[in-house]
Amino acid sequence: MEISILRLSHRIVRDKRVTTHLALVGRAFCAKKMYYSGDRDPSIENKIREVNERFGGDFQVIYIDDPVKFVSNWRKEGGTAIHLTMYGIPLTHLLDELRRKERILLIVGSEKVPRVYYEIVDYNVSITNQPHSEIAAIAVFLDRVLDGLEFTHEFSGGAYRIIPSSRDKKLIRIR
Amino acid sequence: MEISILRLSHRIVRDKRVTTHLALVGRAFCAKKMYYSGDRDPSIENKIREVNERFGGDFQVIYIDDPVKFVSNWRKEGGTAIHLTMYGIPLTHLLDELRRKERILLIVGSEKVPRVYYEIVDYNVSITNQPHSEIAAIAVFLDRVLDGLEFTHEFSGGAYRIIPSSRDKKLIRIR
Repeated sequence: MEISILRLSHRIVRDKRVTTHLALVGRAFCAKKMYYSGDRDPSIENKIREVNERFGGDFQVIYIDDPVKFVSNWRKEGGTAIHLTMYGIPLTHLLDELRRKERILLIVGSEKVPRVYYEIVDYNVSITNQPHSEIAAIAVFLDRVLDGLEFTHEFSGGAYRIIPSSRDKKLIRIR
Repeated sequence: MEISILRLSHRIVRDKRVTTHLALVGRAFCAKKMYYSGDRDPSIENKIREVNERFGGDFQVIYIDDPVKFVSNWRKEGGTAIHLTMYGIPLTHLLDELRRKERILLIVGSEKVPRVYYEIVDYNVSITNQPHSEIAAIAVFLDRVLDGLEFTHEFSGGAYRIIPSSRDKKLIRIR
């Protein structure tokens, strides 16, 4: 299965850190790509390239200018579009069904998500029906749908690797 | 089991949204309290009070001015202190052991966490050995250690409740 993220309406000042966290979580939790709309922000794309160089993998951050069309095309090409929202159906009710999908696009907003997304997606899914964070929602979705893959996945091609340690910071250079 | 969060070194401008997301995730994922150090920031405390009024529960955000002493006292009183860091031992290796603890304090930094925390805690735990987000780390820790409690927990005393829906935003007033 292949999962990508679509971050809607990025605002360059207000959202920089949250959108960067989203991309880092996408990468660490084994999504393939993060698309984003709103303000184009090369600093986020550069940040992720830098992390790939240090720690491996080829996670990409890609700007798109027409997210509604992008979602429609995703579905036309056979992919599944899922909007993560506190108003949706709990992930636990859909887990078996979603695990059988081949290509998933996970959509998260910044502030209020326009009505149209609730309508054009295949699923509106909640990670609790409480307000919290799109970063947490993406992490728990990926952890559960990919069944903990992030704990065993190894990224290739990076300059460094961390050796888990109970007290120390063990970072070794591998190339 | 009771789990609280300690957010280190909050900076009022740079960290406002990330620290707010942390508190919201703590609340939604059934932690009891979030302590924080660094800049005192009543706007976060107020935001969470407002969410409690709307959606229930009594999650608290509490400022502390000496976090090292706070962690030491936590341990002296029999609690377990856990620092979440990409350098630590993977959560999956410790899950059974941690589920048997009665009171856990989950410590997360903003930028670089001072060396002393690696030494005074009971465990340094990683949610992947890749850089990502303290918000995602807290969410996955709580989801796994409390075994999905956030999906069934009901908050009492709130003014509104969300009815999960496949297409709509169903928010009903209950008091």
